[in-house]
Amino acid sequence: MDKLLFKHRAQVRVRNYEVDWQGIVHNANYLLYCEVGRIEYFKHIGLAVDMQSITGSSKIVLVRNEIDYKLPARFDDLLNIFTRVSFIKNTSFGVEGILEREGTGEIIAENIAYHVWLDPSTDRPVSVPEHFRGIVRKFEGANCEILQLKVFNT
Amino acid sequence: MDKLLFKHRAQVRVRNYEVDWQGIVHNANYLLYCEVGRIEYFKHIGLAVDMQSITGSSKIVLVRNEIDYKLPARFDDLLNIFTRVSFIKNTSFGVEGILEREGTGEIIAENIAYHVWLDPSTDRPVSVPEHFRGIVRKFEGANCEILQLKVFNT
Amino acid sequence: MDKLLFKHRAQVRVRNYEVDWQGIVHNANYLLYCEVGRIEYFKHIGLAVDMQSITGSSKIVLVRNEIDYKLPARFDDLLNIFTRVSFIKNTSFGVEGILEREGTGEIIAENIAYHVWLDPSTDRPVSVPEHFRGIVRKFEGANCEILQLKVFNT
Amino acid sequence: MDKLLFKHRAQVRVRNYEVDWQGIVHNANYLLYCEVGRIEYFKHIGLAVDMQSITGSSKIVLVRNEIDYKLPARFDDLLNIFTRVSFIKNTSFGVEGILEREGTGEIIAENIAYHVWLDPSTDRPVSVPEHFRGIVRKFEGANCEILQLKVFNT
Repeated sequence: MDKLLFKHRAQVRVRNYEVDWQGIVHNANYLLYCEVGRIEYFKHIGLAVDMQSITGSSKIVLVRNEIDYKLPARFDDLLNIFTRVSFIKNTSFGVEGILEREGTGEIIAENIAYHVWLDPSTDRPVSVPEHFRGIVRKFEGANCEILQLKVFNT
Repeated sequence: MDKLLFKHRAQVRVRNYEVDWQGIVHNANYLLYCEVGRIEYFKHIGLAVDMQSITGSSKIVLVRNEIDYKLPARFDDLLNIFTRVSFIKNTSFGVEGILEREGTGEIIAENIAYHVWLDPSTDRPVSVPEHFRGIVRKFEGANCEILQLKVFNT
Repeated sequence: MDKLLFKHRAQVRVRNYEVDWQGIVHNANYLLYCEVGRIEYFKHIGLAVDMQSITGSSKIVLVRNEIDYKLPARFDDLLNIFTRVSFIKNTSFGVEGILEREGTGEIIAENIAYHVWLDPSTDRPVSVPEHFRGIVRKFEGANCEILQLKVFNT
Repeated sequence: MDKLLFKHRAQVRVRNYEVDWQGIVHNANYLLYCEVGRIEYFKHIGLAVDMQSITGSSKIVLVRNEIDYKLPARFDDLLNIFTRVSFIKNTSFGVEGILEREGTGEIIAENIAYHVWLDPSTDRPVSVPEHFRGIVRKFEGANCEILQLKVFNT
């Protein structure tokens, strides 16, 4: 991933209980850090992030995570979490995350999280709302690939 | 993933604290369940699983996780975890996992975890040991794609 | 605590990610195991345990935990969790838990969790319902100290 | 506990995955926050805090936790963690922690964690080292009850 494309940074400090018996952060915790980044990102760009909205099962579901582990993080490391919405398709969008060790600049992990927008009453995919597209486009500009909804006139 | 290819099953019951504010198992916990499956799998096929061996940073590292979330698991669900080594390449191998809701047979999530074998003294990739290849081949038979090491005689 | 007073046993197997950098189960996880025991206990004696009932914030709150750590548990240990309601007072009750290593019988930890019953509309303590007293008394018999509600006739 | 006695403050922000199905921080997580406070405290007063020292099983063990839950913390709350060593006895010491909601000043929880100093070669209690007593006394002053080692001359 190209760090230059990211405009948002959050930070976490590795806590002792996030480190496993190998002395390194357990592999599942990197996903948690990326999630912290996503939530801070959405708050920052102006989307409500609470139990009823952005992460609620009623509207958006996480359908896939990919994560590449590059280097282990260790206790007390300060990590930069870079986050961006990298694409918006018809009913889905992707959020990229980079974890970087502050100070050294070493890349710890790279994540992409795929989300789908659902109709809460039917649990079927629906188009990503224009409101969401607009807010993301405004923040990300041309860096976010946004698939335009095709309108076919007959 | 084709469940018929899997010969090993472990089980976990979802605990209350693994459920998040949406009433469903938090997305990072499915990775933990798959890891439980891998550890039980390696114990079952006869590989030492302890802090110094299979999961030790000194020998094998997890380099990538992919996980597809199909349906949420809920408190008190009993989950079947199907695990298999799906391929062994020169210095890496992949472990697939399927989480299934016991009773209904619904697929909850599918994971593939990519591992690389390292020389503990240099942290550089080395060939997957013959011992590991042999034990996996014996258990998995033809279902596991094992890349043969090419020996070129000149 | 006197193990002979306990009539209910649940079990958990220590998972690798519950072990911290010292190679032993992290101190907060023993509380989680005791909670697993409490939930199994309440299910067993016939009390609904779901998001809306026994553990719901609207009815019962955990107000205090005491835990004595005796010996560390380790990866793959099978633990017996003994649970009992040890007392019921006017608006509160206590649940004791013992964690024991299966096989050796070593005591790992002892916990007492204090709960208070609240009126969900006011968040003020109310008397523990007769239904709860009855079900616990039926299961625990004389081992559970139950403070009788005083009825003063004038 | 008397907040005025505490000279050290750390902070954590509640992360979404620390909240349980009731919409409040799960009870075991408050212990984790207090542990974050203790580690920051010991770093601050000049004691090495790493895998080999202060939290290592070889030297200090946590033998008891008491925690009173006053009010629930919620997602995105910023919490102040006040920490102090409240007493040092012959072979043990106690660390108090207060969790407070930043902004409102509401007390969320109060914890006392009891530790014992062990001889790593025998796992038997030994006197708390003078070095530790000195560093704590220097930081805490008269607020920390320090039991003087009695030397009986015969």
